Amino acid sequence: MVYFDNAATTFPKPEVVYSFMDSFYRTNGVNVGRGQFTAASVASRLVEETRSLLLTMFYCNKSKAVIFTPSATEALNMVLQGLSWEDGQTVYITPFEHNAVLRTLTYIMQIYDIKIKYLEPDKKTLRFDFEKIKYDFQTTKPNYVILAHASNTFGCITPIKDICSLAKDFGATTVIDMAQTSGLIDINLNEIKGDYCIFAGHKTLYGPFGIAGFISDKECNLKPLIYGGTGLDSANPSMPSTVPERYEAGSPNIGAIAGLNAALKWIGDTGIENIRIKEKETTVKLLNMLKNYYNIKVIRGADESQNIGVISCVFNGYSSDNVGQILSEKGFAVRTGLHCAPVAHKFMGTAPDGTVRFSISYFTSDDDLLMLKNALDYIEMNG
Amino acid sequence: MVYFDNAATTFPKPEVVYSFMDSFYRTNGVNVGRGQFTAASVASRLVEETRSLLLTMFYCNKSKAVIFTPSATEALNMVLQGLSWEDGQTVYITPFEHNAVLRTLTYIMQIYDIKIKYLEPDKKTLRFDFEKIKYDFQTTKPNYVILAHASNTFGCITPIKDICSLAKDFGATTVIDMAQTSGLIDINLNEIKGDYCIFAGHKTLYGPFGIAGFISDKECNLKPLIYGGTGLDSANPSMPSTVPERYEAGSPNIGAIAGLNAALKWIGDTGIENIRIKEKETTVKLLNMLKNYYNIKVIRGADESQNIGVISCVFNGYSSDNVGQILSEKGFAVRTGLHCAPVAHKFMGTAPDGTVRFSISYFTSDDDLLMLKNALDYIEMNG
Repeated sequence: MVYFDNAATTFPKPEVVYSFMDSFYRTNGVNVGRGQFTAASVASRLVEETRSLLLTMFYCNKSKAVIFTPSATEALNMVLQGLSWEDGQTVYITPFEHNAVLRTLTYIMQIYDIKIKYLEPDKKTLRFDFEKIKYDFQTTKPNYVILAHASNTFGCITPIKDICSLAKDFGATTVIDMAQTSGLIDINLNEIKGDYCIFAGHKTLYGPFGIAGFISDKECNLKPLIYGGTGLDSANPSMPSTVPERYEAGSPNIGAIAGLNAALKWIGDTGIENIRIKEKETTVKLLNMLKNYYNIKVIRGADESQNIGVISCVFNGYSSDNVGQILSEKGFAVRTGLHCAPVAHKFMGTAPDGTVRFSISYFTSDDDLLMLKNALDYIEMNG
Repeated sequence: MVYFDNAATTFPKPEVVYSFMDSFYRTNGVNVGRGQFTAASVASRLVEETRSLLLTMFYCNKSKAVIFTPSATEALNMVLQGLSWEDGQTVYITPFEHNAVLRTLTYIMQIYDIKIKYLEPDKKTLRFDFEKIKYDFQTTKPNYVILAHASNTFGCITPIKDICSLAKDFGATTVIDMAQTSGLIDINLNEIKGDYCIFAGHKTLYGPFGIAGFISDKECNLKPLIYGGTGLDSANPSMPSTVPERYEAGSPNIGAIAGLNAALKWIGDTGIENIRIKEKETTVKLLNMLKNYYNIKVIRGADESQNIGVISCVFNGYSSDNVGQILSEKGFAVRTGLHCAPVAHKFMGTAPDGTVRFSISYFTSDDDLLMLKNALDYIEMNG
């Protein structure tokens, strides 16, 4: 398999992620925070160390807490469904939000009379006009601003620092979906005014499925989404008031947390800057390659410093699924269609067929690119 | 570590669970149902095979579906929060429900004016009086009946077949929490009238953390709890109407599903009956051992055919945490306190201190029992 589906999940993982997950689960695969015995203590320490590694990665001070969830989708649901919605409120989002945001908002709109407004960048440059945003915020006050840090479809980065800063001037609560950027882009949450920042363990953090979460103030007062055992305060018929326990009902997934722990240390050893540089280099190589095909149109902002290694294209004369089928038969892993981001495709003019998405990781090699070149040559010749 | 905390999570797992999880994740750790490429297809087939193995284990016919969730807590939340609650409804539960049920019901009671009534067995025999239940149902019609199949604290088995049958005579919707019994007790869901039956992968199914779920009719119409991408029908701003997709937003945890797959095959090869027999034998050995200590009182129903290998006791002159501390220092894994089941302790007279719980698995050995004997001798001598 030649793997270009890293925006769905990075593959492979660093070797240490597989090996530590396996060895830790074999020796300490017990229930965390619910027993006094040694393996439970070792497991508890691993969980707390993993929270610390995340807080350090994002430059958080001690007022912040890491809440673990089984997926970024669940973290987004926990945050969005947990907010204090009221009729008449306005939520601003970008056109690049994932269905984890869009479908959750659709559900919330069934309960509350809220308005969704879009913060749209220029369709060509994909740059945001901050004066326009300020004007919009002045015209209709933002209660919530939800920002995909980078599009899972077109790779464009949202200027979260500036938009969050503006949003805060208007008293909004800010939510940042960092599923495609945490561990890839150096994010300083001490400087960025994000109230709830969601990360996905299995994507750019190079960890396994089953672990994700969000970073918020320790004083966070979201309404819980999942109710259940927390291993403490068990006689309380409601969830405990302490964070993160209030939002972490059920047995922690210690195997997945071990994998994330190893991944975070690997990122620390490798350096986020180095990961980003390598990803940029590979991205530029791939973009230069794609330019040579008259039948391929890349849909992308021009400024590569504002993009990540997620490249969407359309193939002249082919549906995106057609291309996916051909590449699949030749052993390539790519994703085609709408990538769970229907509004992004509508905005960029690629709905309803969607795009063929090549997404790369630190482990994408020149050999991978060469093999892709051969496949694209074949499609061009047989087009 | 001498492990007696299997009711929290079975440990160790069968070797094949560790090894298959690791090898499958290394070769096929990709996103399921969202790509056409080979590894994605292999992963998708594994997921469908795992659903089939579960349906076969529980004798389900083709009208049933398996919905995967990251934990049994989440499955219970999805079912309970997803039901069509109305003011004035009555829900019957046993005193043995876990906080995943109790706290979720507390939350639902904040929204709806519903009544919770308890189906209580005799405190000595732990037998249910079906005439009494019938009388209760006649007096106050049950809208929902929620039954822990076995207590995670006292090990007593609830006669789910008879109670569900009665509940159905009164038109109730039935929910069975099989977290402590699936894979241990032979459960025929073709005969038991359970509308929503919850299983936990990491307990008596011998799989890993991160995978659980529930079995329901394919026509199941719960309100979704988690909204997000499903890898199909992406242009739909709401969740798709098909089951299981409607309830499985986000990337499936393929590593955990691989572990569960291997565990289910191991159970199939070993035989549920054989697992249950071995567990019973070990339980009786442990009970006979505990009888010899004047300072230990086992809180348990007399009929061992109606119990599982979860043994709660109180130690004369010690708090349960004291005992946990001593055993922990000697390398034993036990659980003390309320075990996330506060009502059970109130009912059995062991609140607020709780009990010391020894819970065994297929892998609990005579050596484990012997080492425990030495530790209990020590406590008795120093008591």
